[in-house]
Amino acid sequence: MISRNKAAYIITLRKKKVRDEEKLFVIEGDKIIREFLEAKAKVRILIALPEFLNSLQVFHKQGIGEIIPATNDDLKKVSSLKTPHNALAIIEMSEPVRDPADLIKGLTIALDCVQDPGNLGTIIRSAAWFGIKNVYCSEDSADIYNPKVIQASMGAILHVNVIYAFLPELLERARKMSVKIYGALIEGESIYSYKLGSSGIILLGNESKGISEELLPFITDRIMIPKLTDAQQGIDSLNVSMAASVILSEFTRGRGRVH
Amino acid sequence: MISRNKAAYIITLRKKKVRDEEKLFVIEGDKIIREFLEAKAKVRILIALPEFLNSLQVFHKQGIGEIIPATNDDLKKVSSLKTPHNALAIIEMSEPVRDPADLIKGLTIALDCVQDPGNLGTIIRSAAWFGIKNVYCSEDSADIYNPKVIQASMGAILHVNVIYAFLPELLERARKMSVKIYGALIEGESIYSYKLGSSGIILLGNESKGISEELLPFITDRIMIPKLTDAQQGIDSLNVSMAASVILSEFTRGRGRVH
Repeated sequence: MISRNKAAYIITLRKKKVRDEEKLFVIEGDKIIREFLEAKAKVRILIALPEFLNSLQVFHKQGIGEIIPATNDDLKKVSSLKTPHNALAIIEMSEPVRDPADLIKGLTIALDCVQDPGNLGTIIRSAAWFGIKNVYCSEDSADIYNPKVIQASMGAILHVNVIYAFLPELLERARKMSVKIYGALIEGESIYSYKLGSSGIILLGNESKGISEELLPFITDRIMIPKLTDAQQGIDSLNVSMAASVILSEFTRGRGRVH
Repeated sequence: MISRNKAAYIITLRKKKVRDEEKLFVIEGDKIIREFLEAKAKVRILIALPEFLNSLQVFHKQGIGEIIPATNDDLKKVSSLKTPHNALAIIEMSEPVRDPADLIKGLTIALDCVQDPGNLGTIIRSAAWFGIKNVYCSEDSADIYNPKVIQASMGAILHVNVIYAFLPELLERARKMSVKIYGALIEGESIYSYKLGSSGIILLGNESKGISEELLPFITDRIMIPKLTDAQQGIDSLNVSMAASVILSEFTRGRGRVH
């Protein structure tokens, strides 16, 4: 049973402003909640069907602030989904770990105004797959704690640091450290023939406008994914999350560390 | 001004059953409608703000069955979007061109129960980018004429044949023609070291269940995208549309035809 006040409070967390103030966000669904519990994320409230609660190990439940057994109807009241899952949890945000040396050590992604939550989520999922530690987002990118982003990331936000930053500052810092900045552009060099390094920032732009004017001067290496159809024909761009995956694959292919 | 009957009729096209019976589907938005007009698709009805209609060339308008100037409120009545675009069109389905020799000539994609409309749309978009002519879908895959698929494909359905088929039959036919069938599996060979051919079928499975049991025996080449993080750690799969893009990129990299 969820009190009316609590339900109302949980619903307010759909707003980014409230999430940021409260430093809390909502996750929904069996699989993702288990992953957060496994990863020892701080769970403030867990609302779930008794079956789900009974399936949890004791050590899973230990750190949880409050556990509320619920009915389907209870879950319907707080879920942002049409058909609610069997469990919903309120998680405390954790500060992303920042190590300035990371920029030199490996590949980093920087997203300039990637606004579609599905795109941001799948980019984070791909980043996790390809062993990327840090994803920087401009402040006008989609919010990592938007339920659609969490859903599309499939738990990958547990394994990747997502850091909101003023990108001109980040790129200026990178430049001073002689870190390469690879910009994904329409008129870049083919990623298949270009010599890609083992470290650097991969900069990807907005879904329709691409990389913003003010960031272009920071780019040291202009790259692109060649289109394999007639230049005049067919579509004019790849989806940004597709582009991210292809570029990450090309950067990391044949690079050991493969399991 | 749209009559109440016409509005009701357009809304019924949201159902796959009705679309299939009427052989019609709906597209929304300035950019995609222009692309369909450019490609000389058969437009049965075009409903749009006067600004949009005025911006069209005469030859664009010639083939259109009926042009209805509309207000924002009119568009709201028929749009499936919360905020309607400035134009909506009813398009006649065209039969996909089937050439049995295509299976030998180049790469073909086969999707086994890819159910998320966004995934299907982005796979078609990537297929168009990488010059794939045919995408086969099992009957239980998402519907190509679902507005979300069309939206995610960004007009790519104009350039790729999407064919619904009984996959065991397709794969049996391919086997008889000695066409390679590359299955994307978790326990396959790394695409980075495997010798990938220039023709064959790339078979991708359902978002959570992968390739179905009955199709596994048809696979001649088992491939996978290596994960670049600890095997024990992190996420357990790539999104199917990400996987499709990465695999297509790997198959086609360095293969000429690049513009």
